[in-house]
Amino acid sequence: MKPIRFYYEFASPYSYISMMRIEELTAQHGIEVIYQPFLIGPLFKDVGWETSPFLIYEAKGKNFFRDIVREAEHYGLPPLQILDEFPQRGLRAARVALLGMAEGWGVAFSKAVYRRQFQQGLPIIGESDVKAVMSETGIENVNEVYEQAQGEENKGRLFEIVNEAKALGLYGAPSFVVGDELFWGNDRLTRAISYAQRD
Amino acid sequence: MKPIRFYYEFASPYSYISMMRIEELTAQHGIEVIYQPFLIGPLFKDVGWETSPFLIYEAKGKNFFRDIVREAEHYGLPPLQILDEFPQRGLRAARVALLGMAEGWGVAFSKAVYRRQFQQGLPIIGESDVKAVMSETGIENVNEVYEQAQGEENKGRLFEIVNEAKALGLYGAPSFVVGDELFWGNDRLTRAISYAQRD
Repeated sequence: MKPIRFYYEFASPYSYISMMRIEELTAQHGIEVIYQPFLIGPLFKDVGWETSPFLIYEAKGKNFFRDIVREAEHYGLPPLQILDEFPQRGLRAARVALLGMAEGWGVAFSKAVYRRQFQQGLPIIGESDVKAVMSETGIENVNEVYEQAQGEENKGRLFEIVNEAKALGLYGAPSFVVGDELFWGNDRLTRAISYAQRD
Repeated sequence: MKPIRFYYEFASPYSYISMMRIEELTAQHGIEVIYQPFLIGPLFKDVGWETSPFLIYEAKGKNFFRDIVREAEHYGLPPLQILDEFPQRGLRAARVALLGMAEGWGVAFSKAVYRRQFQQGLPIIGESDVKAVMSETGIENVNEVYEQAQGEENKGRLFEIVNEAKALGLYGAPSFVVGDELFWGNDRLTRAISYAQRD
């Protein structure tokens, strides 16, 4: 049984849907998930996109905003909320999530970030937004932990994960890396799980 | 029960997979399929792409060539063949397919074009390629029918379908239009079918 490296971006609605599905789906088969909060922006910049391709390509973007609403409904999630400011820059939250992965609360925090954005329709960009989610997650010493997360060492770790993602050939979010195979998109989560179970 | 307008492009492996699935899936529910062979090239040109985005974006393309092989396997199709010359320009074949839709052999011909390209690994671009598929499909008077398909009237009809596709907001292939809803990609075929069954 191979572990699944799950790369997710807080701005990405499809990453959100995968986050809400992956625990149950993998637990059924005893598959380990390595949660990798990361940033898709630097990868988009490498191909010349300064923002989301859903904003750059009009027809694609228009359908995207319909599709994510339909997909959230399909997976039994609450009506999807999209903020006027899309995409929501999730840099600060990603740093906190990464720190949380080492401390055992990273998944709970990440889910709460997604719920805030896509279920409650509240921003996740600012320091106060991120701290509100931290409090909600039950993290003690919110201010100290937040400072540590935004510190040089943790920033460097997130930077490394983004570079690893590039080296692995990622180009979108969510992505799933299983052994040498890369699977892109929430639509490929079940494929990644099937592949993880192969000998 | 709403009909499904199925837009497919001969160069597209995901369109091929949908073509091999759609008859059985829709017949189960008595849903009508309106087959629309079309060309994705003019839509790509509108956003500045002179060829397939899978050739323009390196990481995306690399994963695409893995993904289509895995997806063909997932859907129980023979090992996927990709020609060195990718994408295969399907203009001549699309014109013949369109003519065939009015004459009752369009679906059989389209499936045979896809089998030739993606199962047998043979080109579909040239006149002789298209005529070989026409003969295989059992079309009589191959030369006459081919000339009619490449004639001004039929060329104009294909051009209209491409323009309709643009107006409907299409930006990729395959696409499924059901009522006012657009579904993009083989991954959305079952969603389109569910939607077609809604009141």
